[in-house]
Amino acid sequence: LYFEEFNEGQKFQLDPIQVTKEDIFTYAHEYDPQPIHIDEQFANESIFGGIIASGFQTVSLVWSQWIQKRYFGDQIVGGVGMDNLLWKRPVYPNDVLSTTVEVISKKAFPEKKRGLIELTFTIVNQDEKIVTTFAPKVFIKMKDGNKEE
Amino acid sequence: LYFEEFNEGQKFQLDPIQVTKEDIFTYAHEYDPQPIHIDEQFANESIFGGIIASGFQTVSLVWSQWIQKRYFGDQIVGGVGMDNLLWKRPVYPNDVLSTTVEVISKKAFPEKKRGLIELTFTIVNQDEKIVTTFAPKVFIKMKDGNKEE
Repeated sequence: LYFEEFNEGQKFQLDPIQVTKEDIFTYAHEYDPQPIHIDEQFANESIFGGIIASGFQTVSLVWSQWIQKRYFGDQIVGGVGMDNLLWKRPVYPNDVLSTTVEVISKKAFPEKKRGLIELTFTIVNQDEKIVTTFAPKVFIKMKDGNKEE
Repeated sequence: LYFEEFNEGQKFQLDPIQVTKEDIFTYAHEYDPQPIHIDEQFANESIFGGIIASGFQTVSLVWSQWIQKRYFGDQIVGGVGMDNLLWKRPVYPNDVLSTTVEVISKKAFPEKKRGLIELTFTIVNQDEKIVTTFAPKVFIKMKDGNKEE
């Protein structure tokens, strides 16, 4: 989608994602080898009572699906950053994560033929409890800008 | 380290990380399959002039090394969230990334036998230009709390 095709309040629903214990171990060994993600005995004795997924894994899995859906497609110029990343509740093995993506704000930069949009990702588990939120800001090409080139 | 062993202003220096084009492709295919990270022709014609690394990859690689250094060790209770994630400049293949981690603030919760610390990660490239920053907040066990258990 071009910048003009995103609108404040617009929502997108992603497909459910299930995270297995194997997925959790694999990701954590590479990117977040904290004992709570890879050491079963440590995790069982922790306040979480068992292995939980890396918070970065939750974000990465959801982001990956969002990109694969190609709403940004070839129109994304680049990411600026992210605010309000919150890991509100743990993600346990076999949890099923559902994500809503909402367009929060948009700002046009016509002289640059692009605009900045801010999205909020809200990820809930199978009990409809929020586990994670994050709000990336990205530059998206303008349709008009593209035509002029 | 226990909560008491982290102090405001304390700094940690991580080891340089080099990111190859192969690393960029591998990560992006799994977690961030945007054309700018995986499609060489698209990337060459973009404002970046070539393939750049996923911003999430930069964060994940640095975070992974931070965890492996075991400053948190078994004392980390869990991550709360992250603010001020900024992708200020692109990371190109073979860039060498150096990271400084600084303790920004700490707040004790003695009744819970833990405390909240906020860190700022500042990642610079071989030209000493900042490419990425992020500021995670994590709960860390208190030494005193641990003794009482």
